[in-house]
Amino acid sequence: MKALEEKILKEGKVLPGNVLKVGSFLNQQMDSDFIMEIGNEIARLFSGEKITKVLTVESSGIALAVAAGIALHVPSVFAKKHKSANMSKEVYTAAVYSYTHKETYEIAVAKEYLGKDDVVLIVDDFLANGNAVRGLMKIVEEAGARLCGCAIAIEKGFQGAGDELRAQGIRIESLAIVESMTDESVTFRA
Amino acid sequence: MKALEEKILKEGKVLPGNVLKVGSFLNQQMDSDFIMEIGNEIARLFSGEKITKVLTVESSGIALAVAAGIALHVPSVFAKKHKSANMSKEVYTAAVYSYTHKETYEIAVAKEYLGKDDVVLIVDDFLANGNAVRGLMKIVEEAGARLCGCAIAIEKGFQGAGDELRAQGIRIESLAIVESMTDESVTFRA
Repeated sequence: MKALEEKILKEGKVLPGNVLKVGSFLNQQMDSDFIMEIGNEIARLFSGEKITKVLTVESSGIALAVAAGIALHVPSVFAKKHKSANMSKEVYTAAVYSYTHKETYEIAVAKEYLGKDDVVLIVDDFLANGNAVRGLMKIVEEAGARLCGCAIAIEKGFQGAGDELRAQGIRIESLAIVESMTDESVTFRA
Repeated sequence: MKALEEKILKEGKVLPGNVLKVGSFLNQQMDSDFIMEIGNEIARLFSGEKITKVLTVESSGIALAVAAGIALHVPSVFAKKHKSANMSKEVYTAAVYSYTHKETYEIAVAKEYLGKDDVVLIVDDFLANGNAVRGLMKIVEEAGARLCGCAIAIEKGFQGAGDELRAQGIRIESLAIVESMTDESVTFRA
């Protein structure tokens, strides 16, 4: 998605630790028209699938999941994050290790919102080491639902998880794939 | 908003501790078309104002803020929650006491996303004791921005905070005001 690459080049900032800050339009502050454009692009990419639910994890994925849900006219569901294990029988859970925060947290979705008849599209703002997506995939599997793919705004291609998931046969559609980045420049996969 | 009252009567559940659970369409799972209807209704109610930013707090307010931002064609910004004080000079902060979790947390917005030229609409899914809204109002004041009002999906009228804020001259537009609720019934303000 050319418009996303241009937005990253114009407004993104590379911070220490391979962090690409896009808070001005994608997560802490959302450029509404642009977020809706992304939602429409996701709907276009997956138009051949009979998606019934969009799934993401709080909080930075919610805006994109809402926009994709609006564009696809299907509900979006978000997994909640907990620091400690939630032993409730009412939820599907998965453990996710965060490299950013150096800790493992748990994500959970109430069973009533995901079931075996669902065709699920996972949506997130970033795909880096892939842990959040793998946690969401585990929840989809636990629910007995069918995963039709993952729509990601920005994939950090140099971290490899996107290509690993593709090699496993998962459809990963990233709207921008960063191949490398330095303080001065961000290079996208051609 | 009649459609919201009907949705609450149909899908809402009253849980112990005055909790009105609307996770099936408003927060954990979002009914996308309905969320967009709410966004459009908020835009209609505040159409006379020259709003430049929609402000909410993570995570359950984000979906409505995104929908309102899309309908108003202005950016939405969300305050992040922290357990401990963040002393960074780069953020506006406010302390918020949560009756649900019996603890005080801090909310923070990066200064770069809110400033003195902004006209701000606060959006949230619930207004109960009003602490989250008051925290967001403090951040708007700290930023030197102008608050034009608050758009709330569900106000718990019997907790009084909405009317207290109105008495202070704040424009509070709640799309459904619950006057009382029991295990068997939910009654709205006429």
